[in-house]
Amino acid sequence: MTIHPPVYDPPFNVTRASHAVLAVRDLAASKAFYVDLIGLVVSDEDEDTVYLRGLAEVCHHSLVLKRATGTSVCERVGLRVFTEDDLERAKSYFVEAGLPAAWVDVPYQGRTLHVSDPVGTPLELCATMTTKPRLLTQFDAHHGACPHRLDHFQMFTPDVAAASDFYIRLGFRLSEYICPDGTDEPAMVFLQRKGNPHDVVFARGAGPRLHHFALVIPESYHFFFVCDLAENLGFATNVEFGPGRHGPGNALFVYMRDPDGHRVELFNTHYQMMDIEDEPLRWDASRAGKRRWQLPARRSWFTEASPFLDVESSESDPNEVLPVLETYLLATH
Amino acid sequence: MTIHPPVYDPPFNVTRASHAVLAVRDLAASKAFYVDLIGLVVSDEDEDTVYLRGLAEVCHHSLVLKRATGTSVCERVGLRVFTEDDLERAKSYFVEAGLPAAWVDVPYQGRTLHVSDPVGTPLELCATMTTKPRLLTQFDAHHGACPHRLDHFQMFTPDVAAASDFYIRLGFRLSEYICPDGTDEPAMVFLQRKGNPHDVVFARGAGPRLHHFALVIPESYHFFFVCDLAENLGFATNVEFGPGRHGPGNALFVYMRDPDGHRVELFNTHYQMMDIEDEPLRWDASRAGKRRWQLPARRSWFTEASPFLDVESSESDPNEVLPVLETYLLATH
Amino acid sequence: MTIHPPVYDPPFNVTRASHAVLAVRDLAASKAFYVDLIGLVVSDEDEDTVYLRGLAEVCHHSLVLKRATGTSVCERVGLRVFTEDDLERAKSYFVEAGLPAAWVDVPYQGRTLHVSDPVGTPLELCATMTTKPRLLTQFDAHHGACPHRLDHFQMFTPDVAAASDFYIRLGFRLSEYICPDGTDEPAMVFLQRKGNPHDVVFARGAGPRLHHFALVIPESYHFFFVCDLAENLGFATNVEFGPGRHGPGNALFVYMRDPDGHRVELFNTHYQMMDIEDEPLRWDASRAGKRRWQLPARRSWFTEASPFLDVESSESDPNEVLPVLETYLLATH
Amino acid sequence: MTIHPPVYDPPFNVTRASHAVLAVRDLAASKAFYVDLIGLVVSDEDEDTVYLRGLAEVCHHSLVLKRATGTSVCERVGLRVFTEDDLERAKSYFVEAGLPAAWVDVPYQGRTLHVSDPVGTPLELCATMTTKPRLLTQFDAHHGACPHRLDHFQMFTPDVAAASDFYIRLGFRLSEYICPDGTDEPAMVFLQRKGNPHDVVFARGAGPRLHHFALVIPESYHFFFVCDLAENLGFATNVEFGPGRHGPGNALFVYMRDPDGHRVELFNTHYQMMDIEDEPLRWDASRAGKRRWQLPARRSWFTEASPFLDVESSESDPNEVLPVLETYLLATH
Repeated sequence: MTIHPPVYDPPFNVTRASHAVLAVRDLAASKAFYVDLIGLVVSDEDEDTVYLRGLAEVCHHSLVLKRATGTSVCERVGLRVFTEDDLERAKSYFVEAGLPAAWVDVPYQGRTLHVSDPVGTPLELCATMTTKPRLLTQFDAHHGACPHRLDHFQMFTPDVAAASDFYIRLGFRLSEYICPDGTDEPAMVFLQRKGNPHDVVFARGAGPRLHHFALVIPESYHFFFVCDLAENLGFATNVEFGPGRHGPGNALFVYMRDPDGHRVELFNTHYQMMDIEDEPLRWDASRAGKRRWQLPARRSWFTEASPFLDVESSESDPNEVLPVLETYLLATH
Repeated sequence: MTIHPPVYDPPFNVTRASHAVLAVRDLAASKAFYVDLIGLVVSDEDEDTVYLRGLAEVCHHSLVLKRATGTSVCERVGLRVFTEDDLERAKSYFVEAGLPAAWVDVPYQGRTLHVSDPVGTPLELCATMTTKPRLLTQFDAHHGACPHRLDHFQMFTPDVAAASDFYIRLGFRLSEYICPDGTDEPAMVFLQRKGNPHDVVFARGAGPRLHHFALVIPESYHFFFVCDLAENLGFATNVEFGPGRHGPGNALFVYMRDPDGHRVELFNTHYQMMDIEDEPLRWDASRAGKRRWQLPARRSWFTEASPFLDVESSESDPNEVLPVLETYLLATH
Repeated sequence: MTIHPPVYDPPFNVTRASHAVLAVRDLAASKAFYVDLIGLVVSDEDEDTVYLRGLAEVCHHSLVLKRATGTSVCERVGLRVFTEDDLERAKSYFVEAGLPAAWVDVPYQGRTLHVSDPVGTPLELCATMTTKPRLLTQFDAHHGACPHRLDHFQMFTPDVAAASDFYIRLGFRLSEYICPDGTDEPAMVFLQRKGNPHDVVFARGAGPRLHHFALVIPESYHFFFVCDLAENLGFATNVEFGPGRHGPGNALFVYMRDPDGHRVELFNTHYQMMDIEDEPLRWDASRAGKRRWQLPARRSWFTEASPFLDVESSESDPNEVLPVLETYLLATH
Repeated sequence: MTIHPPVYDPPFNVTRASHAVLAVRDLAASKAFYVDLIGLVVSDEDEDTVYLRGLAEVCHHSLVLKRATGTSVCERVGLRVFTEDDLERAKSYFVEAGLPAAWVDVPYQGRTLHVSDPVGTPLELCATMTTKPRLLTQFDAHHGACPHRLDHFQMFTPDVAAASDFYIRLGFRLSEYICPDGTDEPAMVFLQRKGNPHDVVFARGAGPRLHHFALVIPESYHFFFVCDLAENLGFATNVEFGPGRHGPGNALFVYMRDPDGHRVELFNTHYQMMDIEDEPLRWDASRAGKRRWQLPARRSWFTEASPFLDVESSESDPNEVLPVLETYLLATH
């Protein structure tokens, strides 16, 4: 298996990861988590929906919370395309590829296209949203972790190679990837359109499922403040992993689970990746999985993820050996 | 006068601000300033030249210091184009526009094109550089302000409208601009290609001259640390303006003058600007010039700038009233 | 003139700077300043008084705002003594010294003694206050600059030597002091009881007047956040000096003026001073007054201060040459 | 069992925790750890000894590394007394109490007294040290975690009540303490002389052994930087616990093990405790041991500690149930 070479003239222009749509069982609890603790700002809300954005975002929403009628799921992950023409081209592309593609109406968004990628991830594409003022210098609205913006999504899929291939053909560039030592079979791919390391990430696992969406937060200070605040607000055990330092991507991170178990990553310090000579960085799995200074993640971080609405997930491999904290502690006792 | 509408299908693909080339009288003093104080990393050096990059940069250099044979000048500001084809198209474009354009050889860069824009700024375009490892997680190499990367250039020109028009035609998007109250004549334009607020900025003034180039630094901590370190290293009076908070762009900033008087801005907290519905933000001059919490800049910040090599600058307007600290203090005594 | 040697067996045990009592013309405006902007916490309030404390303070108040019946003044600065016995001994000491001393009742304080020092500073001594919970880990109550506690007071007096002498006899230790070059006449003395550099500071000037009281804030981040917030809340021009770095004391600082012109310093990074061999640090005035990296303070910072209630201040010396920003700019033009 | 009431007129004046003396097997490796990583400064060194201090310390050393002739041990923990008279009184006090007490000569220290407390902790008391300049504003000497000063020691002892009783009689004040729910038998006591929460801490466990000594570091930034640097310098697995937030004491912390397994805590944000009405804060063990936002500490943190030179430790209780990470993970699986 070979990583697909970069495509510089893509069939349509995806610009960036845009928004996540989550179904949640208790809208008030989720709002407390994302607004009071995390610090997202309410752009609009009604009885059944809360539209949230980060402090630096001019688009209407990067996170939509919808009252779940059934179980807690991720309804869709949203990508931005640049123009309405790109949307049309996207429609044709998915239809020709034999993939689902349908126009839908979504509040506060321009014309919107629902599609699915070949590994089953339900996507929502649009070219425009209603705009709102940036709140970067509205410091009296800053609270919690002061999240600036949504940055990327990470999904589990049993077929990382297929996902990688598909997104690279759409013009996504591979920034980093992990292969089992001595193989060329990608176990994890970091793909980007917007010029920093990630817009969509796929990791091997039972899927399609959403592992997490990620928000950029400003400083070291905010990592500790949001954890400290979590305890005050009753969310202490929602802190699942970190703060710690990633290998691939370089970021400082902390992962939290929302009241429905959806996972959000808060991170900072990504790098710019724009130049044609900037080659994908390969990590051997043994090196990528090596403990940095923090302890490894708990098993839940490796295995739990949000199902997508009406999309069946594959089963996880019961024999897979994961570099989980539980095993690490036994080994280093 | 009207601001030119955005051009989504530019004649060639400029991707970002790339590098500055400065002629300096004392190479050792400049290296002490940019390496020991600011924290840039030496990629290569020889008797007459030092090539520097930021901690997050994979390209070979974002700042080149050359031993000056005459006065201290900025030789060129560099822009990246995406492919060699873009370089070819750029050559044709400048030639057809009757502007200077010549191929040159530059160490550690791919094929390089020297051109000038219509307001006289000497530019250097290339599509590739030699690469070096990113040092973002090489924390034992972090020092000074820990600059991650070069971000943008600001130039003085007497004809902001002409500069604005030219770069917008090249596909640059206007993120913010300042007009005298009640007019549509831009006094300052912030133009970008890479998806954050600036790559090139033009402000009205005697020019063409380089007002500053800007480096991204990580946290509040680094603003104070680099100023404190400046005093220890004998550069206390090189701190010219700030730390403070910008109006346009939102950034936290500090400006320093290097040993030759070239000005570098250290800043953080820009925002992402990628979406088609994200309209340029207009500032009335009275509001943009209003003091935020910091005191206004000294006169030198408003009037002094680096000449470009072999390019004559216009004269400054002796009658211009500038919102300088000196006047502010008299008015608020 | 010689600095008085330290007194290790003082007549009574002052433990630390305790609280300031300010008369303010608009209680709501002052509360907005100290609570919404600075981040102090309301311990209690009534129609005419607001009692405030820092996040780390267990004592009831470190700042008392009282509705002014006349002009804006500082009513008193408060010092803590350790025990009720110390209070009794203090009473005797002031009486024997021919200084004013009277018992008074003050809400939320134990028995309280009103005295004046020989240079006319009106003091309020007590051994106990009502206690309140510390809020250091009540992160949902943290806002503004997140001030932890009051640290010290600085006063103007025409007779620094007399003030210094008096407080050293009371057991205060001199941590640092400034003398005009080549003289031994102190122009500024930093005196402490609690084991860090300052509890009371006296600087030469028309007095007695309160130059400022100082609050400890946690991190670099808070210096910028509180300034940024000041602009949002309408207090931009209240930022008078800084952020910057002190010579004596080493602290990072920013000075703000409250709505009545009372001055508060926010600072961090003091050092511990407890050991008998830790000698006072002498600064020549030329070195202490030398610009660090920040520009010098405006004239107002050198000349304006809060009068004390019913205490006449001396006149300022019209011939005094002060190292003010206004002069600095003329000299370095 | 009752906590001893505070003693305000102690037999001699201990002022603060002063220094630790560690025997280490590889002096170069330990110096790399404490200087290159942690950021302590070398005051002096010879073939067999390295004397280190923090950036804010004027005394000669707060950590002494000695080449071990045998196993890795803590030789002594040092306390400061205020005067030579206090030293004399201390000698008499220990002799009268039937405890070891002997004068010794120690380089860079004034007259020094070796004593042991009733639970077997070997102490070293002195009133003076050689002084060195404070380096707080010598920013070019700042590196690693930028530790300002040593703050406190924590010891294991099977008899916390005896330790507590002894130090309270010496004038130490109890700031916080932990008792098993529903009992008054202290399992952990935090005792202080210098006006912040700790100088010596005793926790129930096999002892006497040194659990850790603690250094104050400045900001959130430094917690992450020192961990990140640890990985670069080969000390990744030396990060044992944290960063996290304490219950008692309120501090942000990270614990590291040095190359010999001696444990150092880096922390910040303690509070001031000076007033007579400031009562010790009692924690029920169930609340003190409750997870804040970080995961619990590994078993090693609860059980491993440095033996003292030539002092036999008691055996640990094999039936003790400890709130270790290993058990927590099983319970919350």
